Amino acid sequence: MHDVSHRQAEARLRLLGPNGAPAANQPVRIDQVSHRFLFGCGAFDALPLANMPDGPRKEKLQKRMEKWLALFNYGTLPFYWGQYEPVEGKPAEKETMAAARWLTSRGVRVKGHPLCWHTVCANWLMKYSNEEILRRQLERIRREVTAYKGVIDMWDVINEVVIMPVFDKYDNAITRICKEKGRIKLVREVFAAARESNPDAVLLINDFNTTASYEILVEGLLEAGVPIDAIGIQSHQHQGYWGLEKLNDVLERFSRFGVPIHFTENTLVSGDLMPAHIVDLNDWQVPAWPTTPEGEARQAREMTEMYETLFSHPLVEAVTTWDFIDGGWLRAPSGFVRADDTEKPSYQALKSLIHGRWETHAQAVTDENGFLTFKGFKGGYTLSCGAAKVSFDLSADGEKALVLTE
Amino acid sequence: MHDVSHRQAEARLRLLGPNGAPAANQPVRIDQVSHRFLFGCGAFDALPLANMPDGPRKEKLQKRMEKWLALFNYGTLPFYWGQYEPVEGKPAEKETMAAARWLTSRGVRVKGHPLCWHTVCANWLMKYSNEEILRRQLERIRREVTAYKGVIDMWDVINEVVIMPVFDKYDNAITRICKEKGRIKLVREVFAAARESNPDAVLLINDFNTTASYEILVEGLLEAGVPIDAIGIQSHQHQGYWGLEKLNDVLERFSRFGVPIHFTENTLVSGDLMPAHIVDLNDWQVPAWPTTPEGEARQAREMTEMYETLFSHPLVEAVTTWDFIDGGWLRAPSGFVRADDTEKPSYQALKSLIHGRWETHAQAVTDENGFLTFKGFKGGYTLSCGAAKVSFDLSADGEKALVLTE
Repeated sequence: MHDVSHRQAEARLRLLGPNGAPAANQPVRIDQVSHRFLFGCGAFDALPLANMPDGPRKEKLQKRMEKWLALFNYGTLPFYWGQYEPVEGKPAEKETMAAARWLTSRGVRVKGHPLCWHTVCANWLMKYSNEEILRRQLERIRREVTAYKGVIDMWDVINEVVIMPVFDKYDNAITRICKEKGRIKLVREVFAAARESNPDAVLLINDFNTTASYEILVEGLLEAGVPIDAIGIQSHQHQGYWGLEKLNDVLERFSRFGVPIHFTENTLVSGDLMPAHIVDLNDWQVPAWPTTPEGEARQAREMTEMYETLFSHPLVEAVTTWDFIDGGWLRAPSGFVRADDTEKPSYQALKSLIHGRWETHAQAVTDENGFLTFKGFKGGYTLSCGAAKVSFDLSADGEKALVLTE
Repeated sequence: MHDVSHRQAEARLRLLGPNGAPAANQPVRIDQVSHRFLFGCGAFDALPLANMPDGPRKEKLQKRMEKWLALFNYGTLPFYWGQYEPVEGKPAEKETMAAARWLTSRGVRVKGHPLCWHTVCANWLMKYSNEEILRRQLERIRREVTAYKGVIDMWDVINEVVIMPVFDKYDNAITRICKEKGRIKLVREVFAAARESNPDAVLLINDFNTTASYEILVEGLLEAGVPIDAIGIQSHQHQGYWGLEKLNDVLERFSRFGVPIHFTENTLVSGDLMPAHIVDLNDWQVPAWPTTPEGEARQAREMTEMYETLFSHPLVEAVTTWDFIDGGWLRAPSGFVRADDTEKPSYQALKSLIHGRWETHAQAVTDENGFLTFKGFKGGYTLSCGAAKVSFDLSADGEKALVLTE
């Protein structure tokens, strides 16, 4: 049912001893140590963790992040302009860089989110003319993308463009310029600024709108030559799981461009559902939103079905669940761990996929010429043979010679 | 409230006698005889009328079209491929050309509708490959636009593109190619074929979808350089009048491109409203749909408010009401005349606008140098002075010399 063969590759390995002679008839152990697929989660906790003094608070956060690291290889860090640079000219670069390095030094790939958005935007921008707002927006993109190059090479360049020019909850600088320039012209400029600052970066557009509007926008942008590396799709499901029908429909409609798809902000709650009549999720403010045993079982079930579906789709490259711990955005029970840091069934369920069913561990014996063939999930591997160990990367079918060293 | 000053122009006229001398101190009468604004209506009846033998049926149709001509200066003729060319290679060119000439010889500007659409499409197309369907679609466009050049210089080039690639009521040739090529590439090709065949034609895109999807599609097309001369907006209101709020919202959203707007298919019924839960209007099939006195009063009121609003908007150049007589599409009481050809209040209401409030008739006296100044609605005029008469066109502020001849 879930064909994941495109996630795997078959390698013909030839093992050589330190002297270059084939390691014939040797028993070996092959262990996958990393995934090529991006299993992601919001990593906002890395920001306080990397910047706070030692002490019990830090220890607590550290323990939580250990659980995070045991599951994920990919994290989203916040770059909301209004929080990143609350006072003009004083960006939180030092703190954010520390968080990014904390993650990358632990093998985590990092994405910055977002470089342009009408929400959580810097209020001080509003004193400028539209021309000046745009100039500063592009400068801000160049500044961040350049500063983090080599540490963060993946960006949500622009967020929620479908609603951007008609967003009417409050006045803000970005809606102003999007309304004046139009969606396509603005997206083209912000992407150009990001691309010029880091030609090798992976650049995303991201939206919660999954209707024909977003589809047609993406088509217009691609036709206009905007270099979109991946289409970001939000799937906050506080009002209930989309289900396979909607999920497959979204996948089908957005895959026709042949551009990689990232599920960037996934949420499934393990408590009561938000009523269906709420249009803007931010309008649902509750004092408490508890997790329940039935909700947790449901969340684990739905999470499993979603990840299985997304992992088996050839164009999906990344799935990021938004909250690691309950009580984050909207106080929702949307985490893999509860507010007390204990693991929910969804944590176990995802672990049994990422580090169980979809991770390769094998034993084999080389033939008389030192050859062995094995098939595994794409990613990083170690091969052990006696006391010798060698690392290699499995990204496509092919032959590889590995030299064993102690 | 309804500023229509942009529909008017002020002319300083100088009247000269046949000998070239100023016609000083002459009383004159100025009568507007035609409108620059396109007051349109479906003119499908011209097709049988122009092609049927004399007799009582023709007389009846002729009488109806006289009422039509007393109101409108602009008519839509059908070019649905499946009806225009039901058998491959046998297009109804002779009959349709006769209808078009019947209208143009009576001062009516004609639009052809549509050149590409997934509905009422030729079934015989489906036996071809997608490549061949597209080739024949473009050839069809070149054939029609070339053949009617000088008679029909305005075309709905493509109809309902937002739903086109995902239309799933039945298989058809056009959905197939739109799905394969994508919306923007298909629209670009059909517009290019139309433009190359008649560089001076007015080319429209047309849709019933008035959401952000259509807006974003238009933006994508304009950014891709598609030469859209006017944005066509359908406003079939079988389920009830949009009201000023929606009407103004649509006008505001679609006017940001600075491209002329045509209301191409307007409907307001004078009977019961279609239930709100119907999504595709074609799904509402009733044996009879009577007009009622209250409905007729309401229709006249709504028609007046709509036309006042649209006529006062600077970018609107044309308003076409779809049905002239009740019982047409969906059997709806959507006409200006009832099924027995008697005029409804909406007919009178529209007449009092088009040929009353928005039509200029004036009297004046030239000064000692033969000058007079007058302000009138843009369009064609006659000026009479004694037995002398002269025609002129008022399209912009300025000075004009007119030579009186008997």
